[in-house]
Amino acid sequence: MRKPLVGIIMGSDSDLPVMSAAAQMCEYFGIDYEVTVVSAHRTPERLFKYAKEADKRGLKVIIAGAGGAAHLPGMVASITPLPVIGVPVKTSSLEGMDSLLSIVQMPGGVPVATVAINNSKNAGILAAQIIGIKHKEIKHKIKDYKKQMQEEVEKKAEKLEELEYQDYLKLMGK
Amino acid sequence: MRKPLVGIIMGSDSDLPVMSAAAQMCEYFGIDYEVTVVSAHRTPERLFKYAKEADKRGLKVIIAGAGGAAHLPGMVASITPLPVIGVPVKTSSLEGMDSLLSIVQMPGGVPVATVAINNSKNAGILAAQIIGIKHKEIKHKIKDYKKQMQEEVEKKAEKLEELEYQDYLKLMGK
Amino acid sequence: MRKPLVGIIMGSDSDLPVMSAAAQMCEYFGIDYEVTVVSAHRTPERLFKYAKEADKRGLKVIIAGAGGAAHLPGMVASITPLPVIGVPVKTSSLEGMDSLLSIVQMPGGVPVATVAINNSKNAGILAAQIIGIKHKEIKHKIKDYKKQMQEEVEKKAEKLEELEYQDYLKLMGK
Amino acid sequence: MRKPLVGIIMGSDSDLPVMSAAAQMCEYFGIDYEVTVVSAHRTPERLFKYAKEADKRGLKVIIAGAGGAAHLPGMVASITPLPVIGVPVKTSSLEGMDSLLSIVQMPGGVPVATVAINNSKNAGILAAQIIGIKHKEIKHKIKDYKKQMQEEVEKKAEKLEELEYQDYLKLMGK
Amino acid sequence: MRKPLVGIIMGSDSDLPVMSAAAQMCEYFGIDYEVTVVSAHRTPERLFKYAKEADKRGLKVIIAGAGGAAHLPGMVASITPLPVIGVPVKTSSLEGMDSLLSIVQMPGGVPVATVAINNSKNAGILAAQIIGIKHKEIKHKIKDYKKQMQEEVEKKAEKLEELEYQDYLKLMGK
Amino acid sequence: MRKPLVGIIMGSDSDLPVMSAAAQMCEYFGIDYEVTVVSAHRTPERLFKYAKEADKRGLKVIIAGAGGAAHLPGMVASITPLPVIGVPVKTSSLEGMDSLLSIVQMPGGVPVATVAINNSKNAGILAAQIIGIKHKEIKHKIKDYKKQMQEEVEKKAEKLEELEYQDYLKLMGK
Amino acid sequence: MRKPLVGIIMGSDSDLPVMSAAAQMCEYFGIDYEVTVVSAHRTPERLFKYAKEADKRGLKVIIAGAGGAAHLPGMVASITPLPVIGVPVKTSSLEGMDSLLSIVQMPGGVPVATVAINNSKNAGILAAQIIGIKHKEIKHKIKDYKKQMQEEVEKKAEKLEELEYQDYLKLMGK
Amino acid sequence: MRKPLVGIIMGSDSDLPVMSAAAQMCEYFGIDYEVTVVSAHRTPERLFKYAKEADKRGLKVIIAGAGGAAHLPGMVASITPLPVIGVPVKTSSLEGMDSLLSIVQMPGGVPVATVAINNSKNAGILAAQIIGIKHKEIKHKIKDYKKQMQEEVEKKAEKLEELEYQDYLKLMGK
Repeated sequence: MRKPLVGIIMGSDSDLPVMSAAAQMCEYFGIDYEVTVVSAHRTPERLFKYAKEADKRGLKVIIAGAGGAAHLPGMVASITPLPVIGVPVKTSSLEGMDSLLSIVQMPGGVPVATVAINNSKNAGILAAQIIGIKHKEIKHKIKDYKKQMQEEVEKKAEKLEELEYQDYLKLMGK
Repeated sequence: MRKPLVGIIMGSDSDLPVMSAAAQMCEYFGIDYEVTVVSAHRTPERLFKYAKEADKRGLKVIIAGAGGAAHLPGMVASITPLPVIGVPVKTSSLEGMDSLLSIVQMPGGVPVATVAINNSKNAGILAAQIIGIKHKEIKHKIKDYKKQMQEEVEKKAEKLEELEYQDYLKLMGK
Repeated sequence: MRKPLVGIIMGSDSDLPVMSAAAQMCEYFGIDYEVTVVSAHRTPERLFKYAKEADKRGLKVIIAGAGGAAHLPGMVASITPLPVIGVPVKTSSLEGMDSLLSIVQMPGGVPVATVAINNSKNAGILAAQIIGIKHKEIKHKIKDYKKQMQEEVEKKAEKLEELEYQDYLKLMGK
Repeated sequence: MRKPLVGIIMGSDSDLPVMSAAAQMCEYFGIDYEVTVVSAHRTPERLFKYAKEADKRGLKVIIAGAGGAAHLPGMVASITPLPVIGVPVKTSSLEGMDSLLSIVQMPGGVPVATVAINNSKNAGILAAQIIGIKHKEIKHKIKDYKKQMQEEVEKKAEKLEELEYQDYLKLMGK
Repeated sequence: MRKPLVGIIMGSDSDLPVMSAAAQMCEYFGIDYEVTVVSAHRTPERLFKYAKEADKRGLKVIIAGAGGAAHLPGMVASITPLPVIGVPVKTSSLEGMDSLLSIVQMPGGVPVATVAINNSKNAGILAAQIIGIKHKEIKHKIKDYKKQMQEEVEKKAEKLEELEYQDYLKLMGK
Repeated sequence: MRKPLVGIIMGSDSDLPVMSAAAQMCEYFGIDYEVTVVSAHRTPERLFKYAKEADKRGLKVIIAGAGGAAHLPGMVASITPLPVIGVPVKTSSLEGMDSLLSIVQMPGGVPVATVAINNSKNAGILAAQIIGIKHKEIKHKIKDYKKQMQEEVEKKAEKLEELEYQDYLKLMGK
Repeated sequence: MRKPLVGIIMGSDSDLPVMSAAAQMCEYFGIDYEVTVVSAHRTPERLFKYAKEADKRGLKVIIAGAGGAAHLPGMVASITPLPVIGVPVKTSSLEGMDSLLSIVQMPGGVPVATVAINNSKNAGILAAQIIGIKHKEIKHKIKDYKKQMQEEVEKKAEKLEELEYQDYLKLMGK
Repeated sequence: MRKPLVGIIMGSDSDLPVMSAAAQMCEYFGIDYEVTVVSAHRTPERLFKYAKEADKRGLKVIIAGAGGAAHLPGMVASITPLPVIGVPVKTSSLEGMDSLLSIVQMPGGVPVATVAINNSKNAGILAAQIIGIKHKEIKHKIKDYKKQMQEEVEKKAEKLEELEYQDYLKLMGK
């Protein structure tokens, strides 16, 4: 197995259903990745070790997801020189606003590249974009991905224009 | 010098004007304390060391203040078995709401005893209350402090009742 | 029966499903506790009596949970010299933001040690940490608890690393 | 001096500049009132006594202003059968949202008639409206007050329509 | 039938399930009331007529519930000299925060006595308290109601203290 | 088929269940419309083309719905001289507050006529009102629509007044 | 003097400094307008009269600005068949969020075309866009205005690209 | 002059005082950059051209700052395959919450790497981290920068520990 370029970590295995989309996007773009659990609050030493060794181990980007007082992305970013992407996981209170603010509002000196609440898919794409500045074939895949998204929308648009909206709604089961 | 019982730490020396009230309350209650800067994001190893040794060094309570994506209190709490009091420092955006949520919304297993935004005075009093469960003389001082607050309010109330409110406002320079 | 060290009170018996986790943590740490209902708004005199006598009765810490315009923790704190832990209970509107602000934003002089919304488990742990500054065996148990949390996360991490994330998701039933 | 019908209380004398408008409106409507300081958190017994005796002392309405974790209006309402009007005082953080939610979000059984943030003027008018259901002359004064407000607006409207808006702005010193 | 003292109005009949608790409390306190639909936005003339005639028709208090951009309570208050109680109805977006702010943040001169989101029960009690300043028997009923609430809480507290909390939870079906 | 006057576009076909009410209102007022998907983020060129040609193609008003970081309405408005109505679509996080602010807070020079969250029905009515300034028969239909709304409310009010509210609730199935 | 096409109204003359930009934009586009004060809460009958007669008097669009519990735009919209543009005026509390929600969250049936907080300039432009669907010369002016905005930005961009950003900052006096 | 690797763009030259810190960090890390104004709303074609050509012109990362309904970062990201960093600029209303949500809450498929409100310094550092995955010397500089931040904090901490906090405050001029 090749060495992973993207490390996908999360504060709890209960975040996996949200975070797995990041892994799927890495697969989609053909980027090797690893997935594991690193809890800032329950395994602080593991967090330190992971962040400390990430660069040496050959990782290029770290994607970290956490919810509530979400300290994992920011703490990893404080230790590693690598770019860190933060995914605010929506928890049961406050609609994920706490997760978002805990991740995005980092002080000067230590950025976390924050994506939308629960949007680990975008974290995976952003990781690919970052790696794409070094690996041209990844950048090409991103261009293709963008084209594909565009075509999907256009196909739906065409269909919606063809049908009356009422029939389209019926097709959607509404 | 006696060993400090309360460690007062903050993410940046720019937080000192806010955090100094915690030190003042420790002095008021005759509790030895120390004050220093520990940045979760700029000195993560210092944070680890501080939190790791706090208990052995004889500290009983840690007061940690930070603003924005405020990770210091929660990260210290993840490492030490001591009670950690968090002070959300108001920064230039979002009225301190980011600081508050980043500190209070800790996950199950790792509490931070959070006080009001910028209210490090209350952090100092809470530290005294905590130490007061071991040291009776501190508990007595807290009772006296409460009585004194009460008397001050009563004195002001008496004066306001005596004067017309208009004259009281004038005395206030309004 | 030994005298309780922790008083767990709540504004309504409907808060019990949320607040029972505080009792469970007291049991876990072997700390005697009591559980009852004290409503700031429907039984103000009971509130006064409870808060007034808490210290004399030997309580060391009070955990108070309430929702909405949550006045119970702050009012108890205004009367007793003991440390008071506040649990903001999530109610049907505003995602618990009202409960949180009503509890945490106490004025100078009267702190409430606030934990996360609905997180009475952390209130129980914080109570143990506070009592732990007097009782060494409790502090040791907290250290053990932290170690156990760490090991649980590490075990899950190991398993997730072993399996593909897809299989782990299946095990989770997702 | 006649017995006051409206009790105007506030958590701190620093709230007086905000709360004095309630007194001014009582004067405007010729309603006897009293003004004093009652702190829920620093003088809980005074709060109890005040609320307990308010009805017997002949008060008809209580106006209570407080900021932050504003418990004064709700606690008074828990004790007295009288209608209680709450004024959320804007404090230095959170734009008064904490004060508002702490006052308005009362549980079933104990209402507080909440007015706008810092709007103690409206608390005074509301007190007059409440007293007006018993005293017809007060209700008449309220009608007159409404008419007067209307005329003032109409006069301004007329002037603005006469002048170009540019000249009106100049008259305003803008 | 006697003339109603309390007018309970709402912006839409879909608000009735929320607003009916106000009627129930009027019944509880033996106060005659009327219930109808008055939409500020769909029947502005009906709103005007209702508000204009309310005082003449003998109403003493108006309870108005509305959601979203909730203008009904404030517009009624702009027309009638009677005290108006506003109930912010929780709608499908924004957790009722829009309803609350649209009702409570009235400008100087025109108060609306706002209660908690969806808490029309408290609106009914507040109406009774207001009427109670004129009708002693109502005030006595409020005192009794407060006593009854207190006894209910005390009974529950006693039962919870008797049982282990685990058994109490079972009784609750949790 | 006649040329459409109103273009109804949305960022994704998953917005159609929300946005179809705009089409229904156009039909109600007898205004020709078209419905399609235009994604600001996935089909930026399509967005440009659509906005660029809208005026030439004879459209008079564009209704654009989008959720989250909702850029569609504002970007269309930046390109076309036509009035653009924005519908903030409620997504799974933040209750639609993100959609609302992304649409309404446009900078000076480029307005978007924003309606309530998920309220595409009102977008359709607003489009009719705008077209009504040119086509008198549309304005007449709006007047009729307003009258009809009024009569519906009055009928419900009458019924509610006739029945006891309890029976009305039963009819509602509550 | 020609009959005005746009009515610009505001809840208080203190809103004029904010609202005057709407008038300036009307002048810019050569559209006749009128400016006056209409308070929903202090002059409800004036509001009714104004809204009732607006269409007959030849107005095509109404721009209404108000702050706090801002009912003016919605109430005007409930009465007139004309399109109503709402400007949320920022008041001293809550950063204008109360004004925004009170205006934009209108119920189905009665839209208000809401622009950004304090952005009456955009209200003026939107009014012009609406009138532009009838008057071609206005639409042309809007196209010119858009071109002019574009050129201004491009000129600034060119200058910034020419100078080092440091020198540009100096020119700005920073 | 070498070809720039980082494009720093902003919606208005009035954002330059905030955005210049991104340029300063690029200089600090020895990365060539360009600075210009590109307004999504006033120069949509310029936006398209800039985003379309960025990759071909050799840019590796785009930093885009904007305020309010901030569409610039997201629209650039919709067009270019390069990673886009978004800086939410704080504007006069809503404390920058609108800017933050408009930038961060991007839909699946088109990420924007969002940093804290007004924190363009962190945008510059993040750009360097991204470029650092290709250029080792940049990664080394980031490591050095982190070390330097650490030393600065440690120096301050040492000084604060040496002095009494009172003297440190005096040195700060407080």
